[in-house]
Amino acid sequence: MTTVPVSMTDVRGLVDGALRAAVGRLDPRTYRVAAYHLGWTDAEGHPRAAPAGKALRPALALLSARASGAPQESALPGAVAVELTHAFSLLHDDIMDGDLTRRHRPAAWAVFGEADAILAGDALLSLAVEVLLEAPGQNSGRAARELSAATRRLIGGQARDLEFESRRSVGVDECVAMASDKTAALLACSCSIGAVLDGAPEPLCTALADFGSALGIAFQLVDDLLGIWGDPKVTGKPALSDLRSRKLSLPVVAALNAGTAQSERLAELYATPAADADEPADEASEDDTGDEDETSEEDARLEEMARLVEAAGGRAWAEAEAGRRIEAAGARIAAAGLPAGVRAEFLHIAHFVTGRDH
Amino acid sequence: MTTVPVSMTDVRGLVDGALRAAVGRLDPRTYRVAAYHLGWTDAEGHPRAAPAGKALRPALALLSARASGAPQESALPGAVAVELTHAFSLLHDDIMDGDLTRRHRPAAWAVFGEADAILAGDALLSLAVEVLLEAPGQNSGRAARELSAATRRLIGGQARDLEFESRRSVGVDECVAMASDKTAALLACSCSIGAVLDGAPEPLCTALADFGSALGIAFQLVDDLLGIWGDPKVTGKPALSDLRSRKLSLPVVAALNAGTAQSERLAELYATPAADADEPADEASEDDTGDEDETSEEDARLEEMARLVEAAGGRAWAEAEAGRRIEAAGARIAAAGLPAGVRAEFLHIAHFVTGRDH
Repeated sequence: MTTVPVSMTDVRGLVDGALRAAVGRLDPRTYRVAAYHLGWTDAEGHPRAAPAGKALRPALALLSARASGAPQESALPGAVAVELTHAFSLLHDDIMDGDLTRRHRPAAWAVFGEADAILAGDALLSLAVEVLLEAPGQNSGRAARELSAATRRLIGGQARDLEFESRRSVGVDECVAMASDKTAALLACSCSIGAVLDGAPEPLCTALADFGSALGIAFQLVDDLLGIWGDPKVTGKPALSDLRSRKLSLPVVAALNAGTAQSERLAELYATPAADADEPADEASEDDTGDEDETSEEDARLEEMARLVEAAGGRAWAEAEAGRRIEAAGARIAAAGLPAGVRAEFLHIAHFVTGRDH
Repeated sequence: MTTVPVSMTDVRGLVDGALRAAVGRLDPRTYRVAAYHLGWTDAEGHPRAAPAGKALRPALALLSARASGAPQESALPGAVAVELTHAFSLLHDDIMDGDLTRRHRPAAWAVFGEADAILAGDALLSLAVEVLLEAPGQNSGRAARELSAATRRLIGGQARDLEFESRRSVGVDECVAMASDKTAALLACSCSIGAVLDGAPEPLCTALADFGSALGIAFQLVDDLLGIWGDPKVTGKPALSDLRSRKLSLPVVAALNAGTAQSERLAELYATPAADADEPADEASEDDTGDEDETSEEDARLEEMARLVEAAGGRAWAEAEAGRRIEAAGARIAAAGLPAGVRAEFLHIAHFVTGRDH
């Protein structure tokens, strides 16, 4: 666990005003849902102190302007756009996945209902492009095209993720490809959007996007590790939550494909129906007996699953692969001609993000 | 009922290829849902002959280029973009409204489930902007900004529509304002997008948008009339469907606000719970008796409601108001300097759309 990079603590102050001004354009009913989802208000619409999220994507967007020699402020519309796109995807993913909790709070759809949550996600998605196209200069159109293409890949990755749920087996490569679309595409766009807005030469923009893409895979690997071994107090999700939902996350898929005896046993356990962790225990079953037994049985299964993922090498692979991706990311911008200080900040963020404990 | 304007029969041939190429960029799972929703395939993915929809918005977009003296082909990216945006809104609206039927077929979400339908709508929304930004020339960014602003209004209108459902009374003016956002904003964008892409002078673009805006209100008025008195064989919806769902459509709101004895009785009937028309009769109630009685009671209520809307003046007002809006639309482009033939085609479409019986 390293310290929080300076660029990430400052970024909220820089981006928040523009983000709030953008979301403030929405009609009152849609605004209410969006403001809750972004952590600005509670369910009743009263302001909250703590901002949600790490503002990782805006931080990368601002840094990306400096990579091109432009002031970070020039990337503000890009920073707002990638954050809005990220917010849209979380909002809709929670509905699709039936996730009731987001960042220690009830998910927006659980508070406001599906219809209003769908609409708020639509609004954030469209607003992202609208804001970006208002950036001064000749390059906002190109930036918006790249953001739209990244959004298309993000959607394709989520579609593939939904498809995995209905499949018996998933290969490591296709799981990495899914993460590359679902997570890495928007991070690649975040890392390059400031340079694109500044009209930077193609090779610099591509190097930055490649950095973001490799960072994105590393980020997903770490996120998946935390989905199994992360501290519930920090992640805001129940312990072993990804195993509870039988999610085919990267360490699990690696373990399932390892060809070991543990892989087979893990596959067996994954085939048992998931207990509904979100449902209160007294409603989990029609009959009144056996609920506690079922809960402790499932808990024992989850503990065994976690041990099996580790024993089959899934945990070690994911940790090593995250390290390799971060190394590749660093190598990609080593010779791209970034100002030395900017490159150091990109690397600092990369190490912070993958070494983080939440 | 007039004949179908030439520009509307030709438009499918011009736009279809570009539309299919755009949607063809989506990942296979999302494509499957989008292609079904657009009427290209059946639920199994097999091609269908009949194209869905009237391609009204693409027709207006192509005409809008000619209004500016440009070849209609120059507006193709705009025509595709407005049609994709329209398709997105229908797809998500059906989920939000719980509508099981769309254009005589099961709605996409009823076939593929909510998650995939949400995702497909997201994909169409994002694709609309992506395609538009690929239009050659200097003006695609401005066109995309206007489309995004129209989308924001469309979403705000749908939010307002959802809000109306939970309210006791709705005024005629706020109902017109809602339709102005939900329906007219995208039609205004469709009518001007070709001219915007051609870099036409502001006054021409504004006149075309105003024409589309007035046309949009007229269109909604006629659509609402058909939602009560339209022929189910033609509309693809059950008879009296908007009354069945207690929809606060424009003729109904006008009748409710007319201050007559019929208005009071209509309000009483609207306050009775709606029977779930989509649910099969044998599942509509827990007990086996009384279903047929309930159905015929509800049918009698619906017939009475329709008579009351008419007696309170809601039908006459909506018909007259649609006529006034079409007249205003025509007046708005009378002195805008359009080529005479193009103006005649705009008017022809306006009369066709509001005189249509489906």
